[in-house]
Amino acid sequence: MILGKVISKVVSTRKCEGLQGYKLLVIQPCYGDKEAYFVAADEIGAGEGELVLVSMGAPAQYALKRNAPVDAVVIGIIDREPTIEQ
Amino acid sequence: MILGKVISKVVSTRKCEGLQGYKLLVIQPCYGDKEAYFVAADEIGAGEGELVLVSMGAPAQYALKRNAPVDAVVIGIIDREPTIEQ
Amino acid sequence: MILGKVISKVVSTRKCEGLQGYKLLVIQPCYGDKEAYFVAADEIGAGEGELVLVSMGAPAQYALKRNAPVDAVVIGIIDREPTIEQ
Amino acid sequence: MILGKVISKVVSTRKCEGLQGYKLLVIQPCYGDKEAYFVAADEIGAGEGELVLVSMGAPAQYALKRNAPVDAVVIGIIDREPTIEQ
Amino acid sequence: MILGKVISKVVSTRKCEGLQGYKLLVIQPCYGDKEAYFVAADEIGAGEGELVLVSMGAPAQYALKRNAPVDAVVIGIIDREPTIEQ
Repeated sequence: MILGKVISKVVSTRKCEGLQGYKLLVIQPCYGDKEAYFVAADEIGAGEGELVLVSMGAPAQYALKRNAPVDAVVIGIIDREPTIEQ
Repeated sequence: MILGKVISKVVSTRKCEGLQGYKLLVIQPCYGDKEAYFVAADEIGAGEGELVLVSMGAPAQYALKRNAPVDAVVIGIIDREPTIEQ
Repeated sequence: MILGKVISKVVSTRKCEGLQGYKLLVIQPCYGDKEAYFVAADEIGAGEGELVLVSMGAPAQYALKRNAPVDAVVIGIIDREPTIEQ
Repeated sequence: MILGKVISKVVSTRKCEGLQGYKLLVIQPCYGDKEAYFVAADEIGAGEGELVLVSMGAPAQYALKRNAPVDAVVIGIIDREPTIEQ
Repeated sequence: MILGKVISKVVSTRKCEGLQGYKLLVIQPCYGDKEAYFVAADEIGAGEGELVLVSMGAPAQYALKRNAPVDAVVIGIIDREPTIEQ
């Protein structure tokens, strides 16, 4: 999973049926290429500025109530940024 | 999902059967490596210049009426580019 | 999907059973990291020098007659390189 | 699979149901982009500082007792870092 | 699929059950980021120094006798490195 920050949201009026009802959040990855923003469906009510855990690809479907064409889903809100000592 | 811009289309006369009937759009990613253009099947009638939401990989199948060998599908047209403040 | 050019082929005598009968082509991506060559199974009779459309990952299985351990399949030959104006 | 080092852990109080009960580890890849930290569910009791083998994507589900929305799972602890001579 | 060279192996004593019985090889990609070494399960008896074809992700399961949490499998040994003329 990827740790990211919710930085915005997207609104789509013309969309395919399976996408109805999902809130779509723009996520900034905390690590790696931090400018590779992507969009994730929200399943837990995350808001802008929050640190979240995002599941990517086929396994993300297991967080949904019904199958949908979403390849990234916010599955948790992180209590605090992990301490990384090297 | 990835936010991208429809910048062109591709035509393929010799193709496998499962690809029949799909409009194939060339997408430029809005973020990350912006020169990593890729091709997505269109399910909602997107046109050149429009900002779209693209689902990648196995979950993209849930936007199709029947299974097909496509790994990227345009699933929404974005009303306006998201505001990103950091 | 990815647009690429067929630049070579690979021959493998010792291989797993599920790979029998596939022609294996070396593909150069047209966009992004152009030196990240990869190998794709051919389903439509593509030849060296041709521009092709490649499906990646799990969805590529839908182009095959039977399931096989291939993660990339050539699914179309492109009539001409798409015009990209920005 | 990817070789990585367990460098931290994340705690999430608000999370989706399918994530309940998993210990979530922050992993640093040993090779490639070493700053592209990611999060993996733990199935074998790995601890901070240990070298681990991580399975990514859909196949990682086969390490779980029940399906869950996790796209990376720690599946082994490595006895020692592999010797790489070139 | 990816062309790579077997450069080492990894041994894991503490591992999840589904990983039992697999030989785990460290692979160096021939193209792209050549330092992004990864680990693949071996299904054909490849040895160090050999050039191999590796299947990644969900499709790699079709090379296995039973499903396992491995996301990369060596599926062929290449007779010789492909000739690449540009």
